[in-house]
Amino acid sequence: MNEYPVSADGAMSPKITVELLRQLRQAMRNSKYITGPIQAYIVPSGDAHQSEYIASCDCRREFICGFSGSAGTAIVTEQHAAMWTDGRYFLQASQQMDNNWTLMKMGLKETPTQEDWLISVLPENSKVGVDPWIIAADQWKNMSKALTSAGHSLVAVQENLIDAIWPDRPPRPSTKLITLGLKYTGMTWQEKVTALRVKMSERKISWFVVTNLDEIAWLFNLRGSDIEYNPVFFAYAIVGMGTIRLFIDVKRMADPAVREHLQLDAPSTVEMTVQVAPYESVYTELQAICAALGPRDKVWISDKASCALTEVIPKAHRAPIPYTPLCLAKAVKNTTEIQGMKMAHIKDAVALCELFAWLEKEIPKGTVTEISAADKAEEFRSQQKDFVGLSFPTISSVGPNGAIIHYRPLPETNRTLSLNEVYLIDSGAQYTDGTTDVTRTMHFGTPSAFEKECFTYVLKGHIAVSAAIFPNGTKGHLLDSFARSALWESGLDYLHGTGHGVGCFLNVHEGPCGISYKTFADEPLEAGMIVSDEPGYYEDGSFGIRIENVVLVVQAKPKYNYRNRGSLTFEPITLVPIQVKMINTDLLTEKERDWVNDYHRQCRVTVGAELERQGRKEALEWLIRETQPIA
Amino acid sequence: MNEYPVSADGAMSPKITVELLRQLRQAMRNSKYITGPIQAYIVPSGDAHQSEYIASCDCRREFICGFSGSAGTAIVTEQHAAMWTDGRYFLQASQQMDNNWTLMKMGLKETPTQEDWLISVLPENSKVGVDPWIIAADQWKNMSKALTSAGHSLVAVQENLIDAIWPDRPPRPSTKLITLGLKYTGMTWQEKVTALRVKMSERKISWFVVTNLDEIAWLFNLRGSDIEYNPVFFAYAIVGMGTIRLFIDVKRMADPAVREHLQLDAPSTVEMTVQVAPYESVYTELQAICAALGPRDKVWISDKASCALTEVIPKAHRAPIPYTPLCLAKAVKNTTEIQGMKMAHIKDAVALCELFAWLEKEIPKGTVTEISAADKAEEFRSQQKDFVGLSFPTISSVGPNGAIIHYRPLPETNRTLSLNEVYLIDSGAQYTDGTTDVTRTMHFGTPSAFEKECFTYVLKGHIAVSAAIFPNGTKGHLLDSFARSALWESGLDYLHGTGHGVGCFLNVHEGPCGISYKTFADEPLEAGMIVSDEPGYYEDGSFGIRIENVVLVVQAKPKYNYRNRGSLTFEPITLVPIQVKMINTDLLTEKERDWVNDYHRQCRVTVGAELERQGRKEALEWLIRETQPIA
Repeated sequence: MNEYPVSADGAMSPKITVELLRQLRQAMRNSKYITGPIQAYIVPSGDAHQSEYIASCDCRREFICGFSGSAGTAIVTEQHAAMWTDGRYFLQASQQMDNNWTLMKMGLKETPTQEDWLISVLPENSKVGVDPWIIAADQWKNMSKALTSAGHSLVAVQENLIDAIWPDRPPRPSTKLITLGLKYTGMTWQEKVTALRVKMSERKISWFVVTNLDEIAWLFNLRGSDIEYNPVFFAYAIVGMGTIRLFIDVKRMADPAVREHLQLDAPSTVEMTVQVAPYESVYTELQAICAALGPRDKVWISDKASCALTEVIPKAHRAPIPYTPLCLAKAVKNTTEIQGMKMAHIKDAVALCELFAWLEKEIPKGTVTEISAADKAEEFRSQQKDFVGLSFPTISSVGPNGAIIHYRPLPETNRTLSLNEVYLIDSGAQYTDGTTDVTRTMHFGTPSAFEKECFTYVLKGHIAVSAAIFPNGTKGHLLDSFARSALWESGLDYLHGTGHGVGCFLNVHEGPCGISYKTFADEPLEAGMIVSDEPGYYEDGSFGIRIENVVLVVQAKPKYNYRNRGSLTFEPITLVPIQVKMINTDLLTEKERDWVNDYHRQCRVTVGAELERQGRKEALEWLIRETQPIA
Repeated sequence: MNEYPVSADGAMSPKITVELLRQLRQAMRNSKYITGPIQAYIVPSGDAHQSEYIASCDCRREFICGFSGSAGTAIVTEQHAAMWTDGRYFLQASQQMDNNWTLMKMGLKETPTQEDWLISVLPENSKVGVDPWIIAADQWKNMSKALTSAGHSLVAVQENLIDAIWPDRPPRPSTKLITLGLKYTGMTWQEKVTALRVKMSERKISWFVVTNLDEIAWLFNLRGSDIEYNPVFFAYAIVGMGTIRLFIDVKRMADPAVREHLQLDAPSTVEMTVQVAPYESVYTELQAICAALGPRDKVWISDKASCALTEVIPKAHRAPIPYTPLCLAKAVKNTTEIQGMKMAHIKDAVALCELFAWLEKEIPKGTVTEISAADKAEEFRSQQKDFVGLSFPTISSVGPNGAIIHYRPLPETNRTLSLNEVYLIDSGAQYTDGTTDVTRTMHFGTPSAFEKECFTYVLKGHIAVSAAIFPNGTKGHLLDSFARSALWESGLDYLHGTGHGVGCFLNVHEGPCGISYKTFADEPLEAGMIVSDEPGYYEDGSFGIRIENVVLVVQAKPKYNYRNRGSLTFEPITLVPIQVKMINTDLLTEKERDWVNDYHRQCRVTVGAELERQGRKEALEWLIRETQPIA
């Protein structure tokens, strides 16, 4: 799954917002919340931790305008209300918002930027408010600069005005924490803190303010379920050379397992004592730390952290970084994590073999729909050991729905699986030992020649990446074209990246590596990193194809070793058969045929053994049938 | 030729600089040149036009320290003198500088940046001087910021202090101008000005300050020879909606052909009248223009232009751009230019066929050296119609010298061509109708299996780029890995980019497109652009391999046309046989074999006809022999 799928939790009829907008505009003038009236209020879509998925208490933009997609910014002035979102969401947003709102279609030439629009509608000398906790420091800077140059100003409104008018806003989740032992993590949290401090002292950094939820979870070997699909929990951490502070709902520390895990009652040394403080107190505690900084002290913080927290650190002491050392350390999996990821994928493969064997039997009856197939997949997964939940909403799509890259089946779009259409399922789960993400495209009847042709080009691209050998230090974006070459040769392409980093019982999307034509600042690939390999092809109104494996970066041993740099390649961790029926084998080279046969042999041996152990006979038969070598 | 080759005009023994440094330090305190004494003086290596190659009057850094490479910055303080250069030049710089100088090896961990070094050696509150005409605006900004934060300041010294102590400094060249008619340019300069003004009014730009010499040459359909290998002339231009100003040595306008070409005596309309002013007056004229700007007037200038000129434009009116509209227009060749480039390459191929036929005969006698082979290549080229000169210094290298990517033969390194070593020649010329750049790697005896293996991987990479089909709008850097894939698979690689833009009777290196793993801001490839395709492999101490063609971006017509985007591919313009003897044909796919045979057929037909026409029998025989199909 290459990008956040379209959220479809919200209704598809417009939300009536007249009264809400009246209340918000009142709040914009209410001295209870702000020192002086503001003429506009910006409602971004994120939370205070730059999370890709957010908890329902943070769905403020959805609350005010009704639009439930993952990306969008609402701005309300005294006279207007407008919401900016991108091409994925034009239709959904227009359906979910009432006519108090103007939909601003990003990417179209005629659409003004938020800054330009504000400047065009605001009276002179206006104040524009925003919650500094949910706007990133760099976004604040750009917006502020543009407004200032036009005679306005951007002001931080400490009290969130949406929260002020949202009576039944859900509380911030505070779910039970899971402690992970060495068996899962391969490294104690104390060892991780020590390694982090080594990086800090190498760079002469005194403090590191950790704001990303997955980094905090990884550092402390803890997991939660505060955000759906992402096993994280709301917290901040500040690590110094002799201090570890964890800002979290302190009630969560009542759990004896957590107390024991964090050694709260028997601290061995001062440097390894975790000082727990309330989640909200991170601001004042960081202020106190900054007040005591020496002239040469530097403080690390993500350059995407909230404006509120970033601004606490005086500029002279602030060292913003695109990828924190925790992000980098987390990306390179250790032996235990790799073992866990492999186990998780074997269990996941078992569930999918069950699913596909079941589908083969059930589809002819005409009773299986996109939604019921997705549910069945979840049911099979939940039977596996250490299953925690899904890692993202299942994309289960038939025929034309498959061409909608971010599709998620809804009752009103739900299509029945048949012998006549291509079926694409992109799904994954969280297990205590690892996170999975796999896409398979199948036909349960007879695919057309064009469907097979496209599938084969996508497969060629998938193999080109998976089997690529490349020098140590290569960045993932240099491999992206390999995935497209066969499609390009026939004039085809797909409009998404080829791969993303995958966490280990953590977020299914994580930095700092990936495979994409977009030249973002990706870090070089290293042995131990885990990414997805998922080229596709989408024929609008007709079908969608994607073949996705999670792959591990491993050392390769080619014939030569230029300048002793060493070489890397990928090892597939996902072990689910690729439907041979969809392949036009004439289009494969000998090498590609060998790759498919070798991959299927691995699936049969490894997943077959597990199916056997679990006594899942029908699925085993299906697996053996689907992994017969192609000639 | 992928990068500026190491200049080897300078001596290889150190320049004695005691007296020069004494004089420079005196100048740094001399109120004749500066208002107050400065404690350091920076001598960059460029000229005022961001030229890649510079005229000898601009070789100020070489004059002060002796180092003659293309890249390096010298800084002199009251006590120290240091020179920063990169890995290509460590050896050469250490040989050319005496012990008054510290060599600062860029890219090594322990080497301080210029800013850090200055801050570490300067007394408090120091002034650092630099000529604002030869430092780019963004470099000035960075340096100034760093110095200011440490309590120092960067000051613009209007009089160049090197010129002040350089008694026999060569005058700025003012060579005869060549006027190019429609036959060569396909577009009058008036049409180009009109097209430029359309772009300006689209972007609401009132003025455009043209600082790049090749853009000025292209715009006015004029050429010069002020800088070796680059048919350009020193000038600035400022274009407004009703004004065209050309700043140039006015004596050059005495030439009746130039007067006629520029319509200096019979201006048809005011808007198309070229107002000629002295080269140096650009500064005051730009000041005058800026003084008269309206509140909404915007002025375009390259973001790499000199600090001096950039600063004249008030910030509110300044619109710096990475690639100017002239750079973009120049890159997309029109039909006449394409025809010219093709003709130039046919003539160039004739010369190289002559060379290789001659080498085949002469090498066994043991009398041909790297230098004499290069001279012979120039001699054959000079026999061709409309030959103007070389487009860069010929890289003629045998055996281990071939592994030095930026090699240029010198009397002390000159090696004799033999039947036992690989010969690499990378050369090109300027013809009135086009610019060439071609590399061929040959063995005149029996190449080793390893040499053949490496050559074949390089060839596979060359073909992978040349035959690639890719969507319209693709940037060149997305194709770079295609050139490396075969080498990577065997653990090999090369440490330079794969291709660069090529001018039409202009600079052999030009923006804004290229093919490189370095993600610089390249513009998407478009039909009509011309780039080089030049992968290589270099085995240190043993041999070098590079296969370079100049290729034209053309429309491709694959089977499908996804989203109507259209597809592109390349057409080789260079038509010189690739030595079959060097190919291990077992390593080629059928498609690659077909490509080689098809390419050789084109060489035989097109160049063969020209060889026949010119009556060059031996070369024709050689061509026919070297283009036999491989089975």
